[in-house]
Amino acid sequence: VASSFRERLEQLAAERKSVLCVGLDPRPELFPDEVFHGVGDRPAGVARAMERFCIGIVDAVAAHAVAVKLQLAFFEQAGHHGLAAAERVGAFARERGLLVIADGKRADIGSTSDAYAAAYLAPRRHAPPFADALTVNPYLGADSLEPFADACRASGGLAFVLVRTSNPGGADIQELELEDGSRVWEHVARMVASFAPVAGAVIGATQPGAVRRARELMPEATFLLPGVGAQGGEVAALAPAFAPGPAGGLVSASRSVIHASRDNGRWQGAAAAEAARLREAAWAVVESA
Amino acid sequence: VASSFRERLEQLAAERKSVLCVGLDPRPELFPDEVFHGVGDRPAGVARAMERFCIGIVDAVAAHAVAVKLQLAFFEQAGHHGLAAAERVGAFARERGLLVIADGKRADIGSTSDAYAAAYLAPRRHAPPFADALTVNPYLGADSLEPFADACRASGGLAFVLVRTSNPGGADIQELELEDGSRVWEHVARMVASFAPVAGAVIGATQPGAVRRARELMPEATFLLPGVGAQGGEVAALAPAFAPGPAGGLVSASRSVIHASRDNGRWQGAAAAEAARLREAAWAVVESA
Repeated sequence: VASSFRERLEQLAAERKSVLCVGLDPRPELFPDEVFHGVGDRPAGVARAMERFCIGIVDAVAAHAVAVKLQLAFFEQAGHHGLAAAERVGAFARERGLLVIADGKRADIGSTSDAYAAAYLAPRRHAPPFADALTVNPYLGADSLEPFADACRASGGLAFVLVRTSNPGGADIQELELEDGSRVWEHVARMVASFAPVAGAVIGATQPGAVRRARELMPEATFLLPGVGAQGGEVAALAPAFAPGPAGGLVSASRSVIHASRDNGRWQGAAAAEAARLREAAWAVVESA
Repeated sequence: VASSFRERLEQLAAERKSVLCVGLDPRPELFPDEVFHGVGDRPAGVARAMERFCIGIVDAVAAHAVAVKLQLAFFEQAGHHGLAAAERVGAFARERGLLVIADGKRADIGSTSDAYAAAYLAPRRHAPPFADALTVNPYLGADSLEPFADACRASGGLAFVLVRTSNPGGADIQELELEDGSRVWEHVARMVASFAPVAGAVIGATQPGAVRRARELMPEATFLLPGVGAQGGEVAALAPAFAPGPAGGLVSASRSVIHASRDNGRWQGAAAAEAARLREAAWAVVESA
């Protein structure tokens, strides 16, 4: 059995003094012109520009981060060309010593979740797994999550289950009050705890109140904390996530890092500078926790 | 504006006397040997076998069905090669006059759902949309669904929102009792109704009690009714879905049709026969409703 996601995260965090995850949400309309050189405007060309851009960002931020999160939606916009680009970007990030999180928010009935688990978390023929972790959606219940847990037990991966998300509409279902007075997301949190240690939780950094409560309900789970930066989440509010130590959470920022500048020749430096700044801010929170 | 999904479904259902949707969940371990001829066992070869198999199935069932549902998970198992196969299978099904449903159960925060909507529901550069409809997951709330609704308004598509799913674990979250005595899935159903006419609902055919209640809560929505056949759902129990007419629902079967036989030379005929049988059974229910 491979070492667990948590063990690898603990080691990387200690080595780099970082809990930073850089979100690769490639938005072509925000790319510097130079990545489009010679690629044209068809899906294959857009996918090539995405790949160049993301490789450039990974190169720039690798020293400051412990993980990257590939937002599959943006890659899928370029169809199968985009998914091929995501596969190559993930492989490059792993070579650079980063944990790779596929942010796909997948899940289906059990026999279909099996296929998603095989696609993203299991070793592929002649290749390692697509990713070290996958984000998954709990609406279909425990039997839809089990295949991901099984795959993670076998290959040392992690399933980050959506618990309390960073968007305003996240409250619509997640904050519904149950007849026992608790919230839907708290029920999901208990389900996640039952899958420890192969399940983590997505807790939006825009929901500081939820971070503390989530830590009570899931004492050991690794939290993926997106929404810092462009979405308004504050790093300082995330301290409860790190009560169990540095492997308690990954502070994830996307737009504010990768699209810090769209100037030719400057965008990588700007991304590196923002990643360095966030790394320090997040590590201060870890040390204070 | 293109004609709506519902209008196209009404027309096709009337022409073919069918509300059958064939689920393309390609499981290579159940393929007849002949589709593997010369493809090898790497992802590109597996994807080619999937494509051959699915094209063969579409060819066999096109006269009996009004729609096919591509289960993206199985295609994604073969990585970007698999997604390319799905794109070609979808295009072929559309040429054969079928509605194409991408069963991806996608959704994310709004700006990311925009990307999924662009990937699966919006016209692509030099190509029509990947699909006429996409299945989406409601856990992230209304603002995660709006981008799909917007794309559907523009291109005549439909977002099938997961409401009450066919798997046993579907009850874990969906049947939680809220403080007002209703269930989580009923709340989701009301949200779906608020997105009419561009949102439909996934209601598992294994949950006959839910079908009637769902129809009360969503008087006009088109239901996608998976779980007939291998999962044990009974067609006769689906009558309430068709109260508004034939466009009230799509009866979806996957394994029992596409994997009816794995014998070389016989699998297409077996799939056609099972599709014809189900078409008739489902149409009898439509006429009795």
